[in-house]
Amino acid sequence: MTKGNIQVCLAARPVGMPTDSDWEIRHSPVPVAGEGQFVAEVLYVSVDPAMRGWMNDARSYIEPVAIGAVMRAGGIARVTESKHDGFAVGDHIFTMTGIQQFIVSDGKDIQKVDASLAPLPTYLGVLGMTGLTAYFGILEVADLKEGDIVVVSGAAGAVGSVVGQIARIKGCRVVGIAGGAEKCGYLIDELGFDAAIDYKNDDLHKALRAHCPKGVDVFFDNVGGDTLNTVLPMMRFHGRIAICGAISQYNNTSPVKGPSNYMSLLVSSARMEGFVVFDFAKRYPEAIKAMAGWMAEGKLISKDQIEEGIENFPSVLLKLFTGGNFGKLILKNTAAD
Amino acid sequence: MTKGNIQVCLAARPVGMPTDSDWEIRHSPVPVAGEGQFVAEVLYVSVDPAMRGWMNDARSYIEPVAIGAVMRAGGIARVTESKHDGFAVGDHIFTMTGIQQFIVSDGKDIQKVDASLAPLPTYLGVLGMTGLTAYFGILEVADLKEGDIVVVSGAAGAVGSVVGQIARIKGCRVVGIAGGAEKCGYLIDELGFDAAIDYKNDDLHKALRAHCPKGVDVFFDNVGGDTLNTVLPMMRFHGRIAICGAISQYNNTSPVKGPSNYMSLLVSSARMEGFVVFDFAKRYPEAIKAMAGWMAEGKLISKDQIEEGIENFPSVLLKLFTGGNFGKLILKNTAAD
Repeated sequence: MTKGNIQVCLAARPVGMPTDSDWEIRHSPVPVAGEGQFVAEVLYVSVDPAMRGWMNDARSYIEPVAIGAVMRAGGIARVTESKHDGFAVGDHIFTMTGIQQFIVSDGKDIQKVDASLAPLPTYLGVLGMTGLTAYFGILEVADLKEGDIVVVSGAAGAVGSVVGQIARIKGCRVVGIAGGAEKCGYLIDELGFDAAIDYKNDDLHKALRAHCPKGVDVFFDNVGGDTLNTVLPMMRFHGRIAICGAISQYNNTSPVKGPSNYMSLLVSSARMEGFVVFDFAKRYPEAIKAMAGWMAEGKLISKDQIEEGIENFPSVLLKLFTGGNFGKLILKNTAAD
Repeated sequence: MTKGNIQVCLAARPVGMPTDSDWEIRHSPVPVAGEGQFVAEVLYVSVDPAMRGWMNDARSYIEPVAIGAVMRAGGIARVTESKHDGFAVGDHIFTMTGIQQFIVSDGKDIQKVDASLAPLPTYLGVLGMTGLTAYFGILEVADLKEGDIVVVSGAAGAVGSVVGQIARIKGCRVVGIAGGAEKCGYLIDELGFDAAIDYKNDDLHKALRAHCPKGVDVFFDNVGGDTLNTVLPMMRFHGRIAICGAISQYNNTSPVKGPSNYMSLLVSSARMEGFVVFDFAKRYPEAIKAMAGWMAEGKLISKDQIEEGIENFPSVLLKLFTGGNFGKLILKNTAAD
C-alpha cells in the first residue's frame, strides 16, 4: 500500500468545546521535494492548550488557523527526501509541522535536533516550547527571586510542572494547584513541590491561606477564572503574576470571567503581566542549555503522555480541557517507520 | 464666642454611596498643647477618591478608618500654640490632619511647607500627594517613554490632569477620557492634550480607535470597570497599564466588575500594575523639585476646586463620585483666621 499524508484540518470555528464537525481528516498524497526543498515525515506533534486560541477568529499574538488549513502544531520530523543542501535524509528537525504526517519545506524556520542527546519527545517538552515558556515565564516575566513564595496553577501540566521545578531549583517555596489526588501526589513525591492543592476537593482559598500564611510573591497562572481571582487578594507587596494561559476559560460560550479582585494589584503594589514564549526567541539557546544541565543533574524531570495516531488529534486535544492529561501531551504518528 | 473643633467622624461603614447617617459631626474643644507638643489650625483638607476605600473594613495598603474616629485626610494647617522646639506659632505644615479644624501633634510625620513659594492649596495638589501620585505613577509604574501613545482616564481629575501634562512634557501623544464637553475642552485648550474623549457622549471604543489607530502604549487608569475593559484589547506590544484607582467601582453594592479582557495582557505581552504613592516616599523631594520647575516654566498647571466648611465634607466627598468636581477638590476651613 502506498503511503499517504493524513492531515487534520480545521473545518469550522468551534463554539465552546471543539467537536468532530470542527475537523476534517484529509487523506492527501505524500508531498514531493522540488529543487531546494526537502520532505520530512512527522514523528511527534505537540498538543497544547494554546491551540484552542489559534482556532478562534480573534486578534491575538499569532494569526488564527484558516478554515480549511492544516491545524497548526509544533512537531518533530525526520527528513525522508532532500533536494536541499542543508538537510540530509535521516536528519531530525523541529518545526511547526502542523497536525499531519508529512511536510515539505524550503528549510525556513527549521531547527535541527540531536536524537542522540535526548529522547525526541523531550524536544517538544522540557527542551521545546513548553520548557522555554516555563523558563522565561517564571524567571523573566515573574522575575523570580530566591526565597519567593510561588504558587503555580495547572501545576501538573506540561508548563506548570517545569515552572515549579525551576522555582524549587532557585530556592523558592512552591505550592502547586492541580486536579485530583494522583496529580497532587506526583507534585510532591516526584517533583519536590512543598505543597499541593487539589482544586477539585480542597477549598482553594482556605488551602492557600494554610500553605501560604504570609501570602504569595509569585503566581504563575495557566488557569484563569476563579483560580486567578482567589489568588489575587493574597499577593504580597510587589508581587508578580505571570499570565501564561487561562485554560478554564478557553471553551467558554459565555463571556470570560474577569478577575473582580484585580484591585488587589493596587493594594499590594503588585503586577500582572502576560507573555508568549516567542518574545524571548533570541535567548532560547541559553534556556535550553540551562534546562539540559538540570535534567542531566536529575533536578528537572518531565512526564510525557504519548497518545497514538495523527488522525486521533480531535479527541486527544480535548484531554487538555477535561483534566484527562498528565504531563506533556504528545501525539505520535504511529504510521511512521 | 469660644472656638471649638468641628470634627467629621465615621459613624458607620457605608453600603454603596456614603449617606449622612454614615457620619457624625462632632463639636469638640480645641486641643491644648502638652509638653513637646503643638496645636495647629487646619486651613485646607484634601478630598480624594481613595477616601472611599479607607471607609471599608477590608484588607488594603492602609488600615481602615475606625468607627467613631475622625475621618482621615491630608491637610494644611498653621501652628497656633507650641511647646515643641521644632515648630513655632505661624508655621505652615502638611500632615494627615483628618477632617477637623484643629490638631495636636508631637511633631511626628509632619512636613513644613513654605507659604511664600506656592499657594497653600498647591501643597495638597500638584506639589502634594496628588502630584506625587501622578509623577511616580506615569514615570515609574507606567515606565513612560518618549513617543508613547498614552491614554488617561479620569483625565480632568486631580491626578489625571497632572499625568497627562507630564506625558506631554515627556513628548508623548496624550488622549484623555473625561465626562462632558466642558472637561474635554479644558483638557485640549488649557492642558494641551492631543485629544479628549467624552465618555458620557462618545462611544469609547470607536473614539479610542479613531484617536489611537496604532493602539495604546500606556494606560493610566483612575476609573476601572468598563473603561479599563475597553482599553485592554487596544494595548500594544509591551504596553503598560498603571492602576491608580477604580472610581467607577468604589460605591458598588454588587461585586466589582473584573476586566474580562484581561487576557489581552497575554496577547500583547503587556502588564497591569498597581501602586500607591507611599511606595515612593523616599523620592518625594526629586518629584516636587521637578514639578515645581515645570510649574514655574508654565508647562504644568493645576485647577483647584475649593469648597467651604469642614462640616460640609459629607456632601463635598460625593462630588467625586458624581462627576461634580473639576480639578483638585479641596475643602477650606472657613472658620480659620
